[in-house]
Amino acid sequence: MSHEPPISLWPDPRALGPVTDLYELTMMVGYLASGMAGKLATFELFVRKMPANRAYLVFAGLEQAIGDLLRLAFSPEQIAAIRGWPAFRHVPREAMDALAAMRFEGDVWAIPEGTVVFPGETLLRVTAPLAQAQWVETYLVASLAYPTLVASKAARIVSVAGGRSLQEFGARRGHGPHTGFLAARAAYIAGFDGTSQAEAARLLGIPASGTMAHSWVQAFPNEDSAFAAFAQTFGGAATLLVDTYDTLEGVRRAAAIEPPIPAIRIDSGDLDDLTRRARAILEENHRSGVKIMVSGDLDEHRIAALVEAGAPVDGFGVGTELITSRDAPALGMVYKLVELDGQGKYKLSPAKRTYPMAKQVFRQRDASGRFAGDHVTRADEIADGEPLLVPIVRGGKLVEPLPRLEAIRARCREQLAALPARLRPLDARPDYPITYSDRLEADASRLMSPRERDQAGN
Amino acid sequence: MSHEPPISLWPDPRALGPVTDLYELTMMVGYLASGMAGKLATFELFVRKMPANRAYLVFAGLEQAIGDLLRLAFSPEQIAAIRGWPAFRHVPREAMDALAAMRFEGDVWAIPEGTVVFPGETLLRVTAPLAQAQWVETYLVASLAYPTLVASKAARIVSVAGGRSLQEFGARRGHGPHTGFLAARAAYIAGFDGTSQAEAARLLGIPASGTMAHSWVQAFPNEDSAFAAFAQTFGGAATLLVDTYDTLEGVRRAAAIEPPIPAIRIDSGDLDDLTRRARAILEENHRSGVKIMVSGDLDEHRIAALVEAGAPVDGFGVGTELITSRDAPALGMVYKLVELDGQGKYKLSPAKRTYPMAKQVFRQRDASGRFAGDHVTRADEIADGEPLLVPIVRGGKLVEPLPRLEAIRARCREQLAALPARLRPLDARPDYPITYSDRLEADASRLMSPRERDQAGN
Repeated sequence: MSHEPPISLWPDPRALGPVTDLYELTMMVGYLASGMAGKLATFELFVRKMPANRAYLVFAGLEQAIGDLLRLAFSPEQIAAIRGWPAFRHVPREAMDALAAMRFEGDVWAIPEGTVVFPGETLLRVTAPLAQAQWVETYLVASLAYPTLVASKAARIVSVAGGRSLQEFGARRGHGPHTGFLAARAAYIAGFDGTSQAEAARLLGIPASGTMAHSWVQAFPNEDSAFAAFAQTFGGAATLLVDTYDTLEGVRRAAAIEPPIPAIRIDSGDLDDLTRRARAILEENHRSGVKIMVSGDLDEHRIAALVEAGAPVDGFGVGTELITSRDAPALGMVYKLVELDGQGKYKLSPAKRTYPMAKQVFRQRDASGRFAGDHVTRADEIADGEPLLVPIVRGGKLVEPLPRLEAIRARCREQLAALPARLRPLDARPDYPITYSDRLEADASRLMSPRERDQAGN
Repeated sequence: MSHEPPISLWPDPRALGPVTDLYELTMMVGYLASGMAGKLATFELFVRKMPANRAYLVFAGLEQAIGDLLRLAFSPEQIAAIRGWPAFRHVPREAMDALAAMRFEGDVWAIPEGTVVFPGETLLRVTAPLAQAQWVETYLVASLAYPTLVASKAARIVSVAGGRSLQEFGARRGHGPHTGFLAARAAYIAGFDGTSQAEAARLLGIPASGTMAHSWVQAFPNEDSAFAAFAQTFGGAATLLVDTYDTLEGVRRAAAIEPPIPAIRIDSGDLDDLTRRARAILEENHRSGVKIMVSGDLDEHRIAALVEAGAPVDGFGVGTELITSRDAPALGMVYKLVELDGQGKYKLSPAKRTYPMAKQVFRQRDASGRFAGDHVTRADEIADGEPLLVPIVRGGKLVEPLPRLEAIRARCREQLAALPARLRPLDARPDYPITYSDRLEADASRLMSPRERDQAGN
């Protein structure tokens, strides 16, 4: 009997260098072999198109992305393996040696996390030697698109929850066990109050939220003994799950416990009806202080309906719909070369106009402080409004410590409060105005071929 | 100027103990404090309901899930933090000490990876002291549901690709950077030929696939010099991306390179038309050996259409649709208590009948070797057909080394070949027959209340 340990698919955070598409590595080596690796390049990250059912996005995930970027490196074992792959067999040794020694030493500008953003505007800009700037493409997109999806979905839920407590309950429904960390943080930024994922709560310093599963109730001879044992162990922190057998019977049993428990949770059934009946039972039993939490396939539409109907719900636990951003599980986030050696770079996209050169985004507000429109300029232009991109990394080092999570959350709250009213409804159309400066328009036109200019209608 | 390193959200693989829902930890401590932690419990993992657009599932992810299970532990810092949380303040010290020392020492039976499976049948069964068995719920579901989604989506793609090469290209579109590892492996099991994610390829020993991005072409003064530089560095391994400017011009340039390159890639446009014209250009230029690879928002329907139309495509790169399982991004996988201290446990689910007691699944085949139906029994029953659940872990140790990836992939190939013909079409209805033994039916009925028996129609 052998006990070989199975493979671990957790990457070493000190050797994330090849956690990227192979073609980034081939291009890096190609640039090294062609003497182009050191040319100064600027790439920009942006979202091409609004996903379904969204009128705005909340940018999130930057702290992790930057943290990993600053540690990015290859281990000797990784380099040895890459050298052995067919594509790399004829690559000059000096190029492979340079790859092995590569670190990220460039500059990064980005829009701060928690900011409301829109397709077509630069969210993050990397200026670095070409090989380094190319290296980070896959990793940055993989690290930023998903938290942005979750924060954007969470913001919709927050917008209809009427100030009730919101808990991220999705850990088991994420795309692998790592997802829970990114989702818990993104949801918290957008206004959720806590997460069920214990280690995410610990690492992030956010409230961990949890009750009990049906299996707890089933493990005891009856519901009364299950509730009593839980209340005895956890005292004033015990939230009891009341719907294992008969929900209203469960509520009556929970209401009888001395001293009173703080909350009950209902995970199934007609939540509008059951929470009203549960509230009545709690009142009859002098338990007006007991809160009612609900969960079970909730999304922004079901939560909005419960809140509008006035169901006596104190808190919502949201799992699958949030952690998978189920109605829009992918974001068309891209990272494109816009400048090389001071020259604008440009590729006509059939779906959407794009612009060369390093850029800045200015956000303009109306008299009431609401967002009125964003104006995209070259990075060296100045326009009215708040410049959204700020320097984050210079020469491979943080410019200053990144904002703390509570500050990011506060920024997001202010940002969501400043959304134009027409973008707030769950079915709002994505019609926020983005304009481009005359210099950008001229730069783009200059780089177009005559045929492209025809296609673009210029 | 300070350079505080940003937070890392990569968990320590040696301390995954709290990478779970808080309520698993509260229940563990509750069982410890109530003297119930050592009762022998059996939990079973299964899928409640087939996701949209699927007629069968491919079970995957087991090796990682088991590997992490065998290493599951808490670090002293984690325990110290948990002790400080409000819910744990009144927990007896002995219970917290027992939590700190917890390891998984139970038994696991499971259906081997690469097996075709269906909702309503036990995929994995844990028998362990109650606290340990409860602990692993969130982690097992988070680790198994996602690879199963990707393998199931990949199998659909494989089923229509007509034997053409398939590459998993989704790394940047996954839900966080960890997703690429799980997806690359799951897709390979289901019949994909390689992945673009370099580190996943290295760790798993599967082919890494990659070409170049548009940025490579843009970084050179013109397409000719870009192609020449790439071909020079990578020789016979250079696949050239030909659609940065004018696709057919790009094909002509690629066809002119000496010595001939192995392949071109087209990432945009009308792929049916462009591949035919590209193939004609290659033939005219005596480049019949050059393969044509295509990519760009491909899914099983677009691939089926290209294959049916006879487009001269040699390989497909599939990204977003596969790695997010976009049309079905969540799987209703659950982990339920079925037995405690030898007593059956059972909870009536409004949507679906469930059964108490540890179970086995027997797969029956027809005369031609195709799957005819699955029969679920108690674990101590014997029925016709192949018993699908096999022992994986006994007393916290592997029973024997897990199958190697190539063996899992071969199993999956055989499984998919044995699917009933009616389940193969992309729009097939999920109507595979699952039956339950008389003893299971009797066990379930015995545990039902009279009202439940009415509801269940018994």
